Amino acid sequence: MRFDEAYSGKVFIMSNPSYEESKAVIYGMPMDWTVSFRPGSRFGPARIREASLGLEEYSPYMDKHLEEVNYFDAGDIPLPFGNAARSLDMVEEYVDKLLADGKFPLGLGGEHLLSWPIFKAMYRKYPDMAIIHMDAHADLREQYEGEPLSHSTPIRKACGLIGPENVYSFGIRSGMREEFQYAKESGMHMSKFEVARPLKEILPSLAGRNVYVTIDIDVLDPAHAPGTGTAEAGGITSKELLEAIGAIAKSDVNVIGADLVEVAPAYDPTEQTQIAASKFIREMLLGWVK
Amino acid sequence: MRFDEAYSGKVFIMSNPSYEESKAVIYGMPMDWTVSFRPGSRFGPARIREASLGLEEYSPYMDKHLEEVNYFDAGDIPLPFGNAARSLDMVEEYVDKLLADGKFPLGLGGEHLLSWPIFKAMYRKYPDMAIIHMDAHADLREQYEGEPLSHSTPIRKACGLIGPENVYSFGIRSGMREEFQYAKESGMHMSKFEVARPLKEILPSLAGRNVYVTIDIDVLDPAHAPGTGTAEAGGITSKELLEAIGAIAKSDVNVIGADLVEVAPAYDPTEQTQIAASKFIREMLLGWVK
Amino acid sequence: MRFDEAYSGKVFIMSNPSYEESKAVIYGMPMDWTVSFRPGSRFGPARIREASLGLEEYSPYMDKHLEEVNYFDAGDIPLPFGNAARSLDMVEEYVDKLLADGKFPLGLGGEHLLSWPIFKAMYRKYPDMAIIHMDAHADLREQYEGEPLSHSTPIRKACGLIGPENVYSFGIRSGMREEFQYAKESGMHMSKFEVARPLKEILPSLAGRNVYVTIDIDVLDPAHAPGTGTAEAGGITSKELLEAIGAIAKSDVNVIGADLVEVAPAYDPTEQTQIAASKFIREMLLGWVK
Amino acid sequence: MRFDEAYSGKVFIMSNPSYEESKAVIYGMPMDWTVSFRPGSRFGPARIREASLGLEEYSPYMDKHLEEVNYFDAGDIPLPFGNAARSLDMVEEYVDKLLADGKFPLGLGGEHLLSWPIFKAMYRKYPDMAIIHMDAHADLREQYEGEPLSHSTPIRKACGLIGPENVYSFGIRSGMREEFQYAKESGMHMSKFEVARPLKEILPSLAGRNVYVTIDIDVLDPAHAPGTGTAEAGGITSKELLEAIGAIAKSDVNVIGADLVEVAPAYDPTEQTQIAASKFIREMLLGWVK
Amino acid sequence: MRFDEAYSGKVFIMSNPSYEESKAVIYGMPMDWTVSFRPGSRFGPARIREASLGLEEYSPYMDKHLEEVNYFDAGDIPLPFGNAARSLDMVEEYVDKLLADGKFPLGLGGEHLLSWPIFKAMYRKYPDMAIIHMDAHADLREQYEGEPLSHSTPIRKACGLIGPENVYSFGIRSGMREEFQYAKESGMHMSKFEVARPLKEILPSLAGRNVYVTIDIDVLDPAHAPGTGTAEAGGITSKELLEAIGAIAKSDVNVIGADLVEVAPAYDPTEQTQIAASKFIREMLLGWVK
Amino acid sequence: MRFDEAYSGKVFIMSNPSYEESKAVIYGMPMDWTVSFRPGSRFGPARIREASLGLEEYSPYMDKHLEEVNYFDAGDIPLPFGNAARSLDMVEEYVDKLLADGKFPLGLGGEHLLSWPIFKAMYRKYPDMAIIHMDAHADLREQYEGEPLSHSTPIRKACGLIGPENVYSFGIRSGMREEFQYAKESGMHMSKFEVARPLKEILPSLAGRNVYVTIDIDVLDPAHAPGTGTAEAGGITSKELLEAIGAIAKSDVNVIGADLVEVAPAYDPTEQTQIAASKFIREMLLGWVK
Repeated sequence: MRFDEAYSGKVFIMSNPSYEESKAVIYGMPMDWTVSFRPGSRFGPARIREASLGLEEYSPYMDKHLEEVNYFDAGDIPLPFGNAARSLDMVEEYVDKLLADGKFPLGLGGEHLLSWPIFKAMYRKYPDMAIIHMDAHADLREQYEGEPLSHSTPIRKACGLIGPENVYSFGIRSGMREEFQYAKESGMHMSKFEVARPLKEILPSLAGRNVYVTIDIDVLDPAHAPGTGTAEAGGITSKELLEAIGAIAKSDVNVIGADLVEVAPAYDPTEQTQIAASKFIREMLLGWVK
Repeated sequence: MRFDEAYSGKVFIMSNPSYEESKAVIYGMPMDWTVSFRPGSRFGPARIREASLGLEEYSPYMDKHLEEVNYFDAGDIPLPFGNAARSLDMVEEYVDKLLADGKFPLGLGGEHLLSWPIFKAMYRKYPDMAIIHMDAHADLREQYEGEPLSHSTPIRKACGLIGPENVYSFGIRSGMREEFQYAKESGMHMSKFEVARPLKEILPSLAGRNVYVTIDIDVLDPAHAPGTGTAEAGGITSKELLEAIGAIAKSDVNVIGADLVEVAPAYDPTEQTQIAASKFIREMLLGWVK
Repeated sequence: MRFDEAYSGKVFIMSNPSYEESKAVIYGMPMDWTVSFRPGSRFGPARIREASLGLEEYSPYMDKHLEEVNYFDAGDIPLPFGNAARSLDMVEEYVDKLLADGKFPLGLGGEHLLSWPIFKAMYRKYPDMAIIHMDAHADLREQYEGEPLSHSTPIRKACGLIGPENVYSFGIRSGMREEFQYAKESGMHMSKFEVARPLKEILPSLAGRNVYVTIDIDVLDPAHAPGTGTAEAGGITSKELLEAIGAIAKSDVNVIGADLVEVAPAYDPTEQTQIAASKFIREMLLGWVK
Repeated sequence: MRFDEAYSGKVFIMSNPSYEESKAVIYGMPMDWTVSFRPGSRFGPARIREASLGLEEYSPYMDKHLEEVNYFDAGDIPLPFGNAARSLDMVEEYVDKLLADGKFPLGLGGEHLLSWPIFKAMYRKYPDMAIIHMDAHADLREQYEGEPLSHSTPIRKACGLIGPENVYSFGIRSGMREEFQYAKESGMHMSKFEVARPLKEILPSLAGRNVYVTIDIDVLDPAHAPGTGTAEAGGITSKELLEAIGAIAKSDVNVIGADLVEVAPAYDPTEQTQIAASKFIREMLLGWVK
Repeated sequence: MRFDEAYSGKVFIMSNPSYEESKAVIYGMPMDWTVSFRPGSRFGPARIREASLGLEEYSPYMDKHLEEVNYFDAGDIPLPFGNAARSLDMVEEYVDKLLADGKFPLGLGGEHLLSWPIFKAMYRKYPDMAIIHMDAHADLREQYEGEPLSHSTPIRKACGLIGPENVYSFGIRSGMREEFQYAKESGMHMSKFEVARPLKEILPSLAGRNVYVTIDIDVLDPAHAPGTGTAEAGGITSKELLEAIGAIAKSDVNVIGADLVEVAPAYDPTEQTQIAASKFIREMLLGWVK
Repeated sequence: MRFDEAYSGKVFIMSNPSYEESKAVIYGMPMDWTVSFRPGSRFGPARIREASLGLEEYSPYMDKHLEEVNYFDAGDIPLPFGNAARSLDMVEEYVDKLLADGKFPLGLGGEHLLSWPIFKAMYRKYPDMAIIHMDAHADLREQYEGEPLSHSTPIRKACGLIGPENVYSFGIRSGMREEFQYAKESGMHMSKFEVARPLKEILPSLAGRNVYVTIDIDVLDPAHAPGTGTAEAGGITSKELLEAIGAIAKSDVNVIGADLVEVAPAYDPTEQTQIAASKFIREMLLGWVK
């Protein structure tokens, strides 16, 4: 008596209703508690699923069809409102469970701080992992106005966890002077302003590595993704981001998980942000889940 | 591994996950194929559920809490795009099944034509039924530009099915001359412009009767419900509609099912239409499901 | 080879394509040059026509059908951008011509200053005329920051022209102290805050009189007409304005012409302002053109 | 070399640039950290000031002009992002200072929790004070999901501070069962759904009392104030709120301070919420500051 | 007594009021009956005309002025609501008539299926014709969910009519696997993702040919044209589309007619979609009508 | 008792509260009286300041921090509504004063005509000055419909003032034929369509020169700046404009002042226009004020 949930956008199109049979798991993390400027990414996962209704199931970029990938949409983790510490713990426990079950975790944010507990869970299973990070912001702060759990900090934490030499940032065009200095001195990789070209240059050196990919939707120019909390002019096109996703798919890295964060639908009455985001998720499923 | 669906607005708040245990069933009918002016009510049910997240579970109008009512949210019926005849058949079969299982059907539209198959299913079980209808439009046309399956026709069809003397319309302020003539001559009841006052006068005469209630959100003034396809100035306030819902709850009629239709979120960037609609659904659950 | 202009909202629905045969003439005045706060009423006439597509042609308020009234839609007068003095002259000449041809002029604004040249043309033909004025603002200033041609002045000018004792204002809730003092001392009639009740009391005293009616859409509360330049909280409902239009229709006054001004569509993404305005125009055609 | 700040809406119109000379002080509290549903009231004070540009300086409700009241606009208190406890302390200290200087405090929110530190400061100076509270929500919770500093709690805290018998709530239409029970049993006054009528009945009993007034903009129906975080259908009109403000002005109570909270501009593209709010502030200045 | 229709955007700027004297004819096709996702392109033609008011009449791209081209704007064909088959017949008859009168047909959509009857009429007159097609979607389906009259099918139908070897598609980035296979195997030309570069390579081979050009506005990235039903990320810029239009103008092909479809204004509150579309129409008039 | 004005966006972030100590002065010019299409840039300066709240204070483009530049934000010049001539005089007097005090003037518009009085003041102090102009429109008209004070004329006036050979326009893609002819014949420099590449070619020839830079936000494509009065498709990206600003900073020209005009927030609900504009202002401060 319950109707197919893909109908009317409750789950991502073509998802397999069985967790057990699936290879990848899509999960939402509707938290924006630590956002300093324009909040609203808590509604991102739901609107990305809804927009997936308008997608074709076949990709001419990958020459692949969604029926060739087996994935389950778990819905949103019920993160406790206003409690960042507990929310992050829940995400970490959940990803631990997914990894124990051999799943490929594909997270939908929510704010970027949510990548931090994912990193920790991934690292326990893949201690040799590298991180590819696409973003407008460096996210390399140690804290934000005294608060270590802030959406400006996850990549700095990642550097501490897996070593800065294993972190590769692309498209960065905003941050404090200290963040750019840290990037220069720490041994991490940072490509400013651009994504596809420098990524293609780096990928061969990552061949054979286990790589987690985290994408902040604001790596796109506001023209392509106005629906985000801290829009930053001077970004890349959605065409370039599709090219980057494709480059990873065609490379020899082993993608072990991924997330797409910071979609905040309230600031985009045209809905193009979630429409683009749902296409990126399709490409990630088709190109990265093997 | 699947998360609670009420979280992030996938089902109406406080719904019981078990169909079997439930007394009432909320179901969506995302169809707007026959709409002549501004389409978009296909997205109504999803946004009403989403808006239910902002509701209190207790009602000071009814002095009752949603945990006192047992209801299941079935999601949306997967109506075939563009095929009105088949869509109506599917709704009719579904309501037949609900009634066979002893459930109280609570439908979310979608366009008003969807009430027609519901009427047919209800009538098979309750051949003595009456209909209370709140709407800006008479919906008494025999056809619309040659098409008998139109959103302008369901109440005329209802008159044919259960007898015009069993149909009670309120708040009507738009229609063709022929529709108003039919209302006058056929023996049905029609209150123009107003809802709460005339309804309270009529209710005693319906005491003990089995009554189905259909509400078109455009009975409200566009100030209170701009998110609808054929907004019509001069309507009632949401306060008056809450009063009407309460009057039925306090009366001696036996409500056997209900629907709320024509919420079209795209025309209301303030979201107040679905916010109001979700409150009306809460009141209907609390006041009418016994 | 040219298609019917009523189709897709180029002219008001059901207008007669022949100027000669028509009794009333709808004309647009797309000027907002003297507006001090939020400009945009220059687009009002076009959007009112467009919204007329969603109207029923029959009115249950008047029990009358648009085919019973013969009117022509002349389009918009090509007022020269930025030149208020010349624009007003063009309106005056045009209304002179309409009156010479025996037409009932029905103007769509544009800003309220446009009523001033209409008053002058009407007065030449009807030296005994009275004016009924519904508005949030008194519009009784002598000038606005030194400028006598301002949208805050037309009713003061009208008092000078036809005598304050022949001017009746309703719904006023904003103005300078001097305007309210003038209203009290000059002998004009001013009803503050309310429209329908005081209007009904006044109408019998105007029986047999020639009356021009000017309605500023902001007499409505912003809840009912957000699409206007100087929205003012505390206004009347669209229901009350419909009641007022009906009261005039049922009275013994002889309406000689009318206008509806200050619809500024850009501030109302819900489109309810022009939807309501087109309904008021329908009622004015049905009730006032005899 | 610095230009007049009232120009372009930086301060409320007609404010006196001198703190020392002023009788009343307008201050903003741009905090929305504890909001559970739709955040954004942090931008409320700035947009209310901006909208004041469109106001007339004279009020026909009060027959008074803003030049008859002497007030200073202090701007917004720089509340530390995300730190509710410290923010509340800052507000309390600030109001203490205002009272020490003999000023009438007029606060602009921001979320409703901000009224709590104001109550504490007021109570130190006026231990016999009463509170008049207009709101859609009871705000009588002891805590919200474990958190005592929540926007659902300020009136409960007020009851604890000054005694429930000195708290008068109006317009309440949403809350938990426990809040309505508390209202009934505690000895406080609560009028459900309505404001102006019950307020007028109560006011004589408050004659001569020192009264602080706190208004949550969501006491208005969403039709009149869509720009708020937790819009609740079934509210009052802006006309009724103007009537209530006027009734207090005409009564014999001694208003000692006031606030207007929960204006969240992002949800209202028509801007009518802040337009109405700025009018209420004008009326409060004219009617309550003596 | 009727005013110039170009004034206030009723016809495309600078159109000649005489059908007889004109070389090209602009006509609107306000139909979106077969759209599966977001309807609304029925309002496209009217808003493109309205936006033409903001255009310069001279083009620095073409170094030409609109007064050098003679065109008539016929308004919108009154297509019968909901009846796709009859609507297509009407379009076909109309284009037949235009061609019989020696006119260059320039159609404004509405949905892309409307190009199908145009193709048929063109083919009768120009049996050697080729088609240039710019679009995000392949539109090569044989049917859509059983329905052969769908907006996903016109290019497949065109291949059947004029031979796939005479069909040239550019910018395609969405479709079913079967559509891309058909493109590969049938002998038609398809350039994926890009438009200007491959078009310039192809144009010499079309020298001297009669060519009809159909442009779906969604060939643009949603950043440049958010106002369309099925926005698809990863598209081209408006700069590239202007370059493509210019390349055709400078080539030796003989353009025999053209259309621009799928502008759906409701999804673009910035109005940039119709602003861009009106500029493309100007360029097509200046560059292609000879 | 007055709070920091940078808080809540009243002044541009990090501005020095002392005029005397500052090197540069930001001033707003809220005038749009001569705009022919979509008015609203009068609100541009206020929203650019507000958006500056979301900026980082450090720029990775310039590798510089705002604390390294000393600037004062003077607020908006109180230009008299509707009086263009007097407004321009006030701007000229104000810039004269700034220059007399040795300040670097950084103006925020407001319409482009406002650059004309600035040019005059600059020229008195720097008779050898050159102008770099980035814009979609040539602005080379002698008058607009008879009016010499129009937003289409400032660059033509500049040519008359400082000699066409000292004027360099970039990104131009709209104008009358006469304007392009003038550009060709007068000796001025005009680069059509592009900005960064031709600018970099020209800059060496301007080495050592005193240069004033005027930027019309509509040089950007509407995808990047929809919030402007006369949006023109086919423009540059915000990335290219950042590159152009950087190229000037790295060149050997001596920037003596600058303005950024035509931001009209009402047409951009995503707010990306003012977000981008505030970033451009930051880069201009960091790169051009020496």
